Amino acid sequence: MTDSKGIAYKDGRYIPIEESFIHIMDPAFTKGDVVFDVVTVWDDNFFRLDDHLERFHSSCDYVRLSPPCTDGEIRHVLAQCVDRAGFSRAMVWMLCTRGPFSGGTAFGDPRFCENQFMAYSVPYFWIVPKERSETGAHIWIAETRRAPDVAINQRAKNYNRMDLTAAQFEALDAGADNPVLISTAGFITEGPGNNVWIIKNRTAFTPGEN
Amino acid sequence: MTDSKGIAYKDGRYIPIEESFIHIMDPAFTKGDVVFDVVTVWDDNFFRLDDHLERFHSSCDYVRLSPPCTDGEIRHVLAQCVDRAGFSRAMVWMLCTRGPFSGGTAFGDPRFCENQFMAYSVPYFWIVPKERSETGAHIWIAETRRAPDVAINQRAKNYNRMDLTAAQFEALDAGADNPVLISTAGFITEGPGNNVWIIKNRTAFTPGEN
Repeated sequence: MTDSKGIAYKDGRYIPIEESFIHIMDPAFTKGDVVFDVVTVWDDNFFRLDDHLERFHSSCDYVRLSPPCTDGEIRHVLAQCVDRAGFSRAMVWMLCTRGPFSGGTAFGDPRFCENQFMAYSVPYFWIVPKERSETGAHIWIAETRRAPDVAINQRAKNYNRMDLTAAQFEALDAGADNPVLISTAGFITEGPGNNVWIIKNRTAFTPGEN
Repeated sequence: MTDSKGIAYKDGRYIPIEESFIHIMDPAFTKGDVVFDVVTVWDDNFFRLDDHLERFHSSCDYVRLSPPCTDGEIRHVLAQCVDRAGFSRAMVWMLCTRGPFSGGTAFGDPRFCENQFMAYSVPYFWIVPKERSETGAHIWIAETRRAPDVAINQRAKNYNRMDLTAAQFEALDAGADNPVLISTAGFITEGPGNNVWIIKNRTAFTPGEN
């Protein structure tokens, strides 16, 4: 057991998550110039960490970000974020941000930023309350569409989620638990924090794109 | 003259911009749940502040944000951010963010967040270098499209700008100064930090949407 709310790793230091901030002019905030991945820890073990690392690197590649560390270092940092918090079950985020523009200006050449890596752990939580996930949750097909890959490459897991939030408002207004968004091409995509699977004749199907 | 890099107003306090941060789990960062506007100061005067305030409120309305302050308070804060920095010419940002989810979790009900207002000033700067703006800058029509309103309402000026950054990479790779993005419907929209105007028969035209 632990009272920790989480541990963050930023600028080479481990700090309580309550004290973890990014600068208000960092392009990760002002331009959403950031990719991430989340890996879970269940009973002291990471779940499919290799796969998450692989997807994280794909995300980085899609938007020309390059974490300034090796996979070995990332693994070490993620484990430290969990260990130092004393968590047995946790969610662990890894992020790569563009890094500040030279001179601290709000605009600049993104090719010359020094990309940054950060990570943080928080206690494990359920996106839809656990009881609801057992009895069945209500989803809502939103009017708001998921931003298309031709604008924002959704293969790169990123923090540009205004479409997901607008859809969430629609779902909550309708008394549902969570929304599902349709692509601009008219196909099912995903919701905020959830994927969509359809089981048909004992086979599970999920969207192949977006 | 002043050595200040800028002054920020956040959580009711004025602080040097170098010391101004937001929490790494704030939905303004993790979900891009934020709108903004920028007003310029030239020779000690705000330029069209009324219009910027009006647009700021429109942006807030589009995504159901409500700044916890009056227009009089916003005007006062913006002026303080400039005065305290000693700027004669400046860019001044005003932001409204959703505010943290209760319990500090990464997911939650956005309807019950306490919306936050913040602002900051920085010295005036040119997006395209001044010399280039006089001799003519090279723009690049990007392959990356601007996210459509049906996904992210671009009437709400916001920080979900991954499409703009991808387009900027394309322009810089091609040796151009800045990109212009086409909408998913095939019309000219804007670039990162610039609008597009076409002058034809002594009349100026600019896109009416997106």
